[in-house]
Amino acid sequence: MIDGKRTIAELKELRALTADENGAQRVAWTDTWLAARRWFESKLDELPLERHHDAAGNYWATLAGASDKALLLGGHLDSVPNGGWLDGALDLLAGLEVLRRFHRQFNGRPPLTIRLVDWADEEGARFGRSVLGSSAFAGTLSIEADRHKTDRDGIRLEDAVRRVGFDFTRFSEASAERRNAAAYLELHIEQGPVLEKLGLPLGVVLGTKGVERHAVTFRGQEAHSGSTPMAARRDALAAAARLALEIRPIARHHPEAVCTIGSVKTFPGIATAIVGRCEATLDQRDLDAGVLARLLSDARQASERFAAEEGCTVEWSRLFGIEPVPFHPHLIELCDDAVREIAGRSHRLPSGPLHDAAEVARAGIPSVMMFVQSLGGISHNKIEDTLPEHLEMAVAALDRLAGKTADWILRG
Amino acid sequence: MIDGKRTIAELKELRALTADENGAQRVAWTDTWLAARRWFESKLDELPLERHHDAAGNYWATLAGASDKALLLGGHLDSVPNGGWLDGALDLLAGLEVLRRFHRQFNGRPPLTIRLVDWADEEGARFGRSVLGSSAFAGTLSIEADRHKTDRDGIRLEDAVRRVGFDFTRFSEASAERRNAAAYLELHIEQGPVLEKLGLPLGVVLGTKGVERHAVTFRGQEAHSGSTPMAARRDALAAAARLALEIRPIARHHPEAVCTIGSVKTFPGIATAIVGRCEATLDQRDLDAGVLARLLSDARQASERFAAEEGCTVEWSRLFGIEPVPFHPHLIELCDDAVREIAGRSHRLPSGPLHDAAEVARAGIPSVMMFVQSLGGISHNKIEDTLPEHLEMAVAALDRLAGKTADWILRG
Repeated sequence: MIDGKRTIAELKELRALTADENGAQRVAWTDTWLAARRWFESKLDELPLERHHDAAGNYWATLAGASDKALLLGGHLDSVPNGGWLDGALDLLAGLEVLRRFHRQFNGRPPLTIRLVDWADEEGARFGRSVLGSSAFAGTLSIEADRHKTDRDGIRLEDAVRRVGFDFTRFSEASAERRNAAAYLELHIEQGPVLEKLGLPLGVVLGTKGVERHAVTFRGQEAHSGSTPMAARRDALAAAARLALEIRPIARHHPEAVCTIGSVKTFPGIATAIVGRCEATLDQRDLDAGVLARLLSDARQASERFAAEEGCTVEWSRLFGIEPVPFHPHLIELCDDAVREIAGRSHRLPSGPLHDAAEVARAGIPSVMMFVQSLGGISHNKIEDTLPEHLEMAVAALDRLAGKTADWILRG
Repeated sequence: MIDGKRTIAELKELRALTADENGAQRVAWTDTWLAARRWFESKLDELPLERHHDAAGNYWATLAGASDKALLLGGHLDSVPNGGWLDGALDLLAGLEVLRRFHRQFNGRPPLTIRLVDWADEEGARFGRSVLGSSAFAGTLSIEADRHKTDRDGIRLEDAVRRVGFDFTRFSEASAERRNAAAYLELHIEQGPVLEKLGLPLGVVLGTKGVERHAVTFRGQEAHSGSTPMAARRDALAAAARLALEIRPIARHHPEAVCTIGSVKTFPGIATAIVGRCEATLDQRDLDAGVLARLLSDARQASERFAAEEGCTVEWSRLFGIEPVPFHPHLIELCDDAVREIAGRSHRLPSGPLHDAAEVARAGIPSVMMFVQSLGGISHNKIEDTLPEHLEMAVAALDRLAGKTADWILRG
């Protein structure tokens, strides 16, 4: 009834249409993205679906059922520049396969309504605002905070959206799509190395980690590298280096926590001067809000101690923050069952990256995600890949999960 | 006989002529530098001097004496952009004051020849080639290696030099000026904090430290900050941070050694990615060649150990190197005597920065330098300063040293 090989073939078709030698180029609101959407719409023609764009540019395809209660399946066709072939697209095309199965099994009239959604601008690659369409749906988008965002050419998000037929000031009207939504499911590549290291094809996602992201700036004293004795230095890089190492024991105190310094900039940044100012970014994540708060306060205290010991000052400024979003406990159990039935073994893990599913969950709709193994844990890159047998298992397991979730909705 | 107040007044005159609100702008080969030189030449008009430019653009003023044996005093009018009022100019104007004293004391005919030289392009601020004129004099300049150097506007050193009347291919002919040179003296601001910390106005320079300067590149694995567990990371920044801290115990093993990481660059350098590549510069200096070699091998070994432990690779590439140049042992003693006579106490210290005196010494001419305290150890900045009483003592001590050196030359 379910054909994962067809999903793989369709993903390859999409890649041929929208990737170049550097990878997928389906950046939201661009012509290549629109071409991907037209291709996807043509795939839907075979089914008797109600189809429309909502106010935020999300594309909905609905197979009406006996009950108005709706099971939602989602993904996103948009990619980062030079992206991979699976991130977002797998979710949507696996969802299409599930939709086909429901249509066939119930002769076009399933016991409940099934809806497939292609979220707009999940990546935020161009305007720096990820999960845009799904946050409009969820009511977590601040129109005023985001409408004036610009891309690197100075084009405003508001104008890019208007060019393809949408009005940013009306994005919040997408919340109308929440009506009758009873559950949301999303399959995604893991984009990390955990399942591969465990030798498992599939995993159950417990939720998306909360994020605390800060700029941390140490200030010491710029001085000549040749004339300043070691003991007379106030080296801002030394303080930052100590923090870069200390975040590791801070994170390892908690089983799933991660802390990352991804960017370090040195000023004046020349070989012959001691670093007078060092700007670092610190990204901290955990699924538990209390743990996340602890990671932050531990890092702050350590930075202040290192600054004092190195004769420097330190200043923190928040760049971004989002609370952890745990998925629905019963859907996690159902997902675990589905994974076991298809793959024999399951594993539960949090998601570090954000996903549209977190926005849907924040809107109060029971949600869960399933991960399929990523080779090398690599994503957002043209070498992003997953074994074909794992992709087939993923499509089958998503279908199992959809069946179980439909039963649960109908029982509720 | 010697008037340090006049030197200070002349330094202020020069500053008024060649500095703007950001500091001194006497960058070599520019119109402001030429204006500084014209002003300096006008100061020499009062004395009966033979004056000429050599083939490398160094400007020589000679007070002929009874003996052809020549005592050389030098400095440089060129500055970095936004530089200070003392760096280089103090050396030259204090030398002028000494020349005046010899002229007056010996009624225009001292027992030996005294020569004052304004070296061309000591700073190398525009073309990245410091001690240019003095290395032409010393015969250590490679014409072919340097003639094609360009400034940030793409102007070639060779062309900038031609614009003010010199031919770069003939620079090495400046070595003719070495004839009869019996000793070289140079007074300079310390550009470091040592004398200030000791509460001393003046110090004796033992030599200029050798330099080993390398680019050190660690390569790990770029990965998503949210999805990659701490234990699965190959973080190039972590390896670099460990080296940034380890160079401190490596340097402190030797009393005068310094090691500095002045620049760190992270790639991709975004908050949400583990650092896949980290490029650092390492600058190491000591007055002893054996110690310098040890500093380098210790740092290399440490970097290899850190790279291995962090699952990274490391690669070294030499950016610059110069051997240590010790000054003349007897001139060091004479300088020590002169400093004690004027300041009561003396201190011997190596110079971290390079100076023209090192090039002169490399040519086999007995040389020594005297340092005067720098407030806050700051140089290459408009706030560079020295107490007026220290400047006066410096001029007086240079004069004492010149007298002692003249006696030593005549005895030899």
